[in-house]
Amino acid sequence: SLTSGTQERVARANWPSRGETETGMSRLALSDTDKQARDWFVDTCESLGCEVTIDEMGNTFAVRPGLKDGPPTFAGSHLDTQPTGGRYDGILGVTAAVEMLRVLNDNWIETTYPVGVVNWTNEEGARFPISMVASGVWAGEIPLATAHNLQEVGGGTATMKSELQRIGYLGSKPATHKDIPMAAHFELHIEQGPILEAEHRKVGVVKGVQAYRWFTVTVSGRDCHTGTTSFAHRADAMLAASRMIVFSHRAASARGALASTGILTLKPGSTNTVPGLVKFSLDIRAPKDETVQEVEDACKQAFMNIANGINVAGLLEGGTESDRHCTVEWKTDSVSPAINFHHDCIQCVKDASEDLFAEKTENLTKIMVSGAGHDSVYTSKRVPTSMIFVPCRDGVSHNPAEYSTPEDCAIGAQVLMGAVLHYDRL
Amino acid sequence: SLTSGTQERVARANWPSRGETETGMSRLALSDTDKQARDWFVDTCESLGCEVTIDEMGNTFAVRPGLKDGPPTFAGSHLDTQPTGGRYDGILGVTAAVEMLRVLNDNWIETTYPVGVVNWTNEEGARFPISMVASGVWAGEIPLATAHNLQEVGGGTATMKSELQRIGYLGSKPATHKDIPMAAHFELHIEQGPILEAEHRKVGVVKGVQAYRWFTVTVSGRDCHTGTTSFAHRADAMLAASRMIVFSHRAASARGALASTGILTLKPGSTNTVPGLVKFSLDIRAPKDETVQEVEDACKQAFMNIANGINVAGLLEGGTESDRHCTVEWKTDSVSPAINFHHDCIQCVKDASEDLFAEKTENLTKIMVSGAGHDSVYTSKRVPTSMIFVPCRDGVSHNPAEYSTPEDCAIGAQVLMGAVLHYDRL
Ligand SMILES: NC(=O)NCCC(=O)O
Ligand SMILES: NC(=O)NCCC(=O)O
Repeated sequence: SLTSGTQERVARANWPSRGETETGMSRLALSDTDKQARDWFVDTCESLGCEVTIDEMGNTFAVRPGLKDGPPTFAGSHLDTQPTGGRYDGILGVTAAVEMLRVLNDNWIETTYPVGVVNWTNEEGARFPISMVASGVWAGEIPLATAHNLQEVGGGTATMKSELQRIGYLGSKPATHKDIPMAAHFELHIEQGPILEAEHRKVGVVKGVQAYRWFTVTVSGRDCHTGTTSFAHRADAMLAASRMIVFSHRAASARGALASTGILTLKPGSTNTVPGLVKFSLDIRAPKDETVQEVEDACKQAFMNIANGINVAGLLEGGTESDRHCTVEWKTDSVSPAINFHHDCIQCVKDASEDLFAEKTENLTKIMVSGAGHDSVYTSKRVPTSMIFVPCRDGVSHNPAEYSTPEDCAIGAQVLMGAVLHYDRL
Repeated sequence: SLTSGTQERVARANWPSRGETETGMSRLALSDTDKQARDWFVDTCESLGCEVTIDEMGNTFAVRPGLKDGPPTFAGSHLDTQPTGGRYDGILGVTAAVEMLRVLNDNWIETTYPVGVVNWTNEEGARFPISMVASGVWAGEIPLATAHNLQEVGGGTATMKSELQRIGYLGSKPATHKDIPMAAHFELHIEQGPILEAEHRKVGVVKGVQAYRWFTVTVSGRDCHTGTTSFAHRADAMLAASRMIVFSHRAASARGALASTGILTLKPGSTNTVPGLVKFSLDIRAPKDETVQEVEDACKQAFMNIANGINVAGLLEGGTESDRHCTVEWKTDSVSPAINFHHDCIQCVKDASEDLFAEKTENLTKIMVSGAGHDSVYTSKRVPTSMIFVPCRDGVSHNPAEYSTPEDCAIGAQVLMGAVLHYDRL
């Protein structure tokens, strides 16, 4: 069986390792450490006999020739992480794909058509705030200029283009599916949720991804003195933002959706000055596009009302609102519609699971929808796509405590390779 | 009359002037620009015949000799500002006191005892987050080490002591009323509220200052993925903080108090990671100490409940709280009890107003309580103290739009000098 060697190598490959696998990873897209990981990826793939292409978005494609020419079947994911992320989110999908190359070589396996491995740029959207932006450009869904001009969060002036240039990953190949064709795209990923673990299942056969949208909400009030300004005279942007965040949670909750604020900045930032300006991010998700739209509409309306001191479902007290003279501005940063993956690819993942689990397949696998976005969302717009999930402890992700056992990682790698080989034979 | 020359000089003296008086000022305590203003203050006072003393807190005392020796009667305030502050808050009190020296000199006025002018350090508490900290040390109410070790807000490593040293204002004189005695302390200040303007009055005779306390609240939850983590599995520190801020406003409002959050920071700061850590400032004020205590108690209880998912007055929905697994930590940063100023000093301010307004005094003055803290709060613990307020446009302060007319500033300066001379004669 390939499983035991693979298991060991995949566990080791969560690179760069600093001690045990249970600690986290901070490798923001296009940072110096991202460059290190990219260099490792390029060197390793070349040493395994692949030809490597880097496009204008820094997406890096490694191709292993097949018996015949034609678009390669790709396996891939991303090497960037959250500011305080884990060692599995994305990384597992790339390292397992590299492992696939090794196993094919070690076993002298020749595929009908080429197979490829891809590392997509800035999947997280943590540093440059559009997730999956580089696969989005490849798919023709996001303009190159939008992506290149995207500025890093936190007030820095670096753009994706300036950082691609700085670390030497601004490739010359046009970032488009037309110039870099694929037959199909498979992505192994940790589930990032608690379901597989809770149900003691080993593999998630991912049939689609839920919808989500990102917004930046700007609340403008007026700086004033906290000690001398009566509530009636205030335009308290922080109080307004607080009510908005509470409301967004309520609106999502009522519709089985999710709403989250991960970034918030205020000005001027002094204990005794009521803030006149607050900006915050809003991430809304739901299985259906219509539900996301409903939550968005409800928030838009309610945020306006909050800014104008109109009572919203018991959130305001009537009469003493300090935030009623605010204004609110609403910017859509990105839209990722609900996605259904391709029947053929889903079937290949099922087949590969069956190869491994035989009669236990039904108990050990689960057909499921992803809560998180993945580069597979964008590849699926252009080529048949599916994903494989493996369990992660407590469903924890975007956290240094993120963890999947070496056994589960190896099972995922095995199914990933199996799915690619099944597709190659189609 | 002294008023017209004074009017012109006080208007000019809102230094350093960059064009019209209607724009703002950003001169954080112990910054390079604060050093410039301090240098101007020292040079000017020396050129007006004063002896200047700098203490270990950078408080700067200029003394003009009297006919007899004895503790000087002081006029003073502060030259530091909010990050986006005005040109009057504090500055008017110092420049009017300097103007007093000039008028005394120009008119060959000899006082019985010495008179002094003082510039107190970091009154705002904007950069080093205890307001009036340096007069607090002088009064023996705040330990020198606490003040010296105070760190700047915003995550920098500078302390008051390191910055005093850096700009050359770490004096050798012990910062204590024992070594730097005063007979009395008078402070001219803009009202920073709307009352005098609304009632068409020219002078506020300040009989006291309301109570306030500053807190830092730390909410700890757990970083997690915004797309894959159900509300039930979250410990959303930002949602919890939002509910707390809304609650604090409600608790204050119900008791005729004020509550404000001027600083909030979160971690890790990514659109698709639910923040596991939020810190925010809370400023609670009320005319009575007991009321501040009541709001503090209510908030402490409610914040605990919010963190534990226990419903608080309709703020939580029951069952779907994403913040119920958080913990909350509560730190008291400073306590400024309600203060009543000294009868003799209040009488001197009244007398000086009467000298100026004669039979119009009753219509043009108002006995009032200050909503903001001032260095006079701490001087009043050791020596007879009172303050003079002048109107400011729309009651706006801690904002670049802060404005008082040259006429009103000059009236204030006139009453300040009058009050000092009345006290000198007592
Ligand atoms: N898998 C993952 O964490 N993707 C980031 C995009 C998202 O926020 O869903
Ligand atoms: N006058 C003034 O703005 N003082 C700062 C201290 C306070 O916050 O009240």
